[in-house]
Amino acid sequence: MNVWTPYGWKIMRHVDTYIRKELDSTGHDEVYFPLLIPETEFNKEKEHIKGFDSEVYWVTHAGLNELDVRLVVRPTSETAMYPMFSLWVRSHTDLPLKTYQIVNTFRYETKQTRPFIRVREIHFFESHTCHASEEDAQEQIEEDIVILENIMKQLCIPYSLFVRTEWDKFPGAHYTVGLDTVMPNGRMLQIGSIHHYRTNFSIPYNITYEDADGKHEHVHQTTYGMSERLVGAMIGVHGDDKGLILPPPVAPFQTVIIPIISKGNADLIMKEAEKIKDMLISAGIRTKLDDRDERPGSKFFDWEIKGVPLRIELGIKDIENRAITFARRDNGEKGTISSEDVVPGVNMILEAICENMFNRAWERQRANVVTIDSLKVVPEMTLRFGWCGSEECGRRFEEENDLKLLGTPYVPEEFSGKCIICGKETDKAAYAARSM
Amino acid sequence: MNVWTPYGWKIMRHVDTYIRKELDSTGHDEVYFPLLIPETEFNKEKEHIKGFDSEVYWVTHAGLNELDVRLVVRPTSETAMYPMFSLWVRSHTDLPLKTYQIVNTFRYETKQTRPFIRVREIHFFESHTCHASEEDAQEQIEEDIVILENIMKQLCIPYSLFVRTEWDKFPGAHYTVGLDTVMPNGRMLQIGSIHHYRTNFSIPYNITYEDADGKHEHVHQTTYGMSERLVGAMIGVHGDDKGLILPPPVAPFQTVIIPIISKGNADLIMKEAEKIKDMLISAGIRTKLDDRDERPGSKFFDWEIKGVPLRIELGIKDIENRAITFARRDNGEKGTISSEDVVPGVNMILEAICENMFNRAWERQRANVVTIDSLKVVPEMTLRFGWCGSEECGRRFEEENDLKLLGTPYVPEEFSGKCIICGKETDKAAYAARSM
Repeated sequence: MNVWTPYGWKIMRHVDTYIRKELDSTGHDEVYFPLLIPETEFNKEKEHIKGFDSEVYWVTHAGLNELDVRLVVRPTSETAMYPMFSLWVRSHTDLPLKTYQIVNTFRYETKQTRPFIRVREIHFFESHTCHASEEDAQEQIEEDIVILENIMKQLCIPYSLFVRTEWDKFPGAHYTVGLDTVMPNGRMLQIGSIHHYRTNFSIPYNITYEDADGKHEHVHQTTYGMSERLVGAMIGVHGDDKGLILPPPVAPFQTVIIPIISKGNADLIMKEAEKIKDMLISAGIRTKLDDRDERPGSKFFDWEIKGVPLRIELGIKDIENRAITFARRDNGEKGTISSEDVVPGVNMILEAICENMFNRAWERQRANVVTIDSLKVVPEMTLRFGWCGSEECGRRFEEENDLKLLGTPYVPEEFSGKCIICGKETDKAAYAARSM
Repeated sequence: MNVWTPYGWKIMRHVDTYIRKELDSTGHDEVYFPLLIPETEFNKEKEHIKGFDSEVYWVTHAGLNELDVRLVVRPTSETAMYPMFSLWVRSHTDLPLKTYQIVNTFRYETKQTRPFIRVREIHFFESHTCHASEEDAQEQIEEDIVILENIMKQLCIPYSLFVRTEWDKFPGAHYTVGLDTVMPNGRMLQIGSIHHYRTNFSIPYNITYEDADGKHEHVHQTTYGMSERLVGAMIGVHGDDKGLILPPPVAPFQTVIIPIISKGNADLIMKEAEKIKDMLISAGIRTKLDDRDERPGSKFFDWEIKGVPLRIELGIKDIENRAITFARRDNGEKGTISSEDVVPGVNMILEAICENMFNRAWERQRANVVTIDSLKVVPEMTLRFGWCGSEECGRRFEEENDLKLLGTPYVPEEFSGKCIICGKETDKAAYAARSM
């Protein structure tokens, strides 16, 4: 289990803030459902429980008593929410029902855990929606993708959308869209997923509505989930040998001011540094003045590790020139801003940093794809190739190459070629990569 | 276990926002520690485990395996945090360490549960601090009380501070301050507590620091906890027979606009209502325009139940008079505001509502105390009386009267009289009440 220190937790909370902003502005309501789910509720959807029962923690005792009904520590909240949804949804006027929560969920990982990437206690965002029809649910998925785009712009994380294979979809889903990001080692990291459930859950959980004609129908459902893997992706995609590079929108400190003090001018420089700090903070820019009694070089080093996007240096020459010196963390670029323009100047540079990080990461994600027409594994690349769509060929490809078949593009792509396994003509491209 | 619906969760999140604001501005860092705590860590402080082992949920299995070490679902986080604190604190320069988290905690309640008041999954704020000396820790408690005052001003909840009796203090604490609010039925509800641990936890968890002279010392610790009982108290203290009355700072909607439409003027009124809504929202006032196709009276009723502090009515007469009509939820008072002054007028009334709710609640809390000098129970009152301080007299008083001895005032009070049980002269006043 992980401990979140203050600095990391601040980043996560900024990410949550962007998620909440997008969900709230698209008419989702934040809710909170219980962590502990009775086994009797958990077992209602057969595929779902099959997918999870080897991965959940079980509460079997409370105080000194053994429980009559064991409790599952939620791995995801379908089975906690849907018994209530069946009470909340009565009529077509109750639809769509759009809810989300940001909570701790749990998976009993037996593989080696890694911070942010594979953890046992997961900091999880999950939205759950109910709709009158399959088409309405499909529209929700389109909205989810716009939400994704908006959030990822702030986090500067690129992604690809793949419809997962039948044998890799979420347990109980009609289909699953995986959101994948290429990490610097070429491995693909799933940073989230969107699911269309059709009526697969509404039937066992009995979530029905009365339509305008008085007929009772089962709702169509979708879910959307992301976790602290977003932070893992951010660290992986942007970091360099000096440490983190944080996107300005989520950086706990967007800029750090380092006073460069030489003999006899400490008071003057500190006074000016305080003034600049106050100005930036008043303008809503998260600013740290590092007034520790350390060499500037050692301070540079500390804040580079922590990924602060913009460093401001302030020495006697800067004050004489009525300017500040800056250094960008994303590309090392240095320059000066005149004292009068500190706030608009810093804002402009922070925007430029964000844009550069976003574009650079997207270029890498796109450049990582290689189309192949024969069975050869190109290490560290995302492979694109023809696939007839059969499970047999798909599984054989995965096993022989020790790769994960990511699926087919969610946004259809033109393709004509042959299945890389069986050689059958196909107009379907599939993607594969090593996964994290 | 409780389900939080969107409306309730919004209130809780506003409460959390005020807690975070106070904690952040006093130099506390928000952190997040694991929910599941190995039994081996949980058992280190003997009093603590004695106080909790009949009240915790146990995870004994994960997937298909039985765990070697059982996991406690946190009832509170001392035993999760302090093994880490022992690594984080090295030197006196690391002190004070001030942290907090807002998380779900669990108690296996065997008594009847009640929403907000006695729940099994608790929405919990907990701060944990480490200090160089007992005095520094004591100063933290003084700061906690200022924090409390600031938060309660927003929530309009009055409180009394009692040093709990030895047999009622938190398991493992040196002493406990209970924060108590009188509910309308005269019962006392504990809405939070502050604990001074001295070195009771730092010894078993080995949290030490090197002082300026190179000597190793154990830290002194404090904690501070509050929960959704704050929402329970808010509902109980302020509500009336018509429903909730929410303090403006935490109300999901601070004002609701009800258009009073008569024949032929729907467009005009709705246009004006939209204009007022936009104006109020731009000014940061959480505003709902209720444009449902229902009678105004039925809308009044709905929003009264939900406790919206201020109702704005807008009919054709209001528009002709270039005014709006308002009704306060706290005292039913009605009046008008001229159209030009809507924003400052609404702000002023919201402030007046908050002040009135705060003062009214405090008056009731104070008026509920009755000083007695012989053993008689005054139902629905908080009793104040002399107590020699002995456990024997204290416990006898509790048992004979079926009351809870709340303790002695945290802020010392002048008193001279006799112990209500043994008759010994004493300068100590104690308080008692039925508890929720």
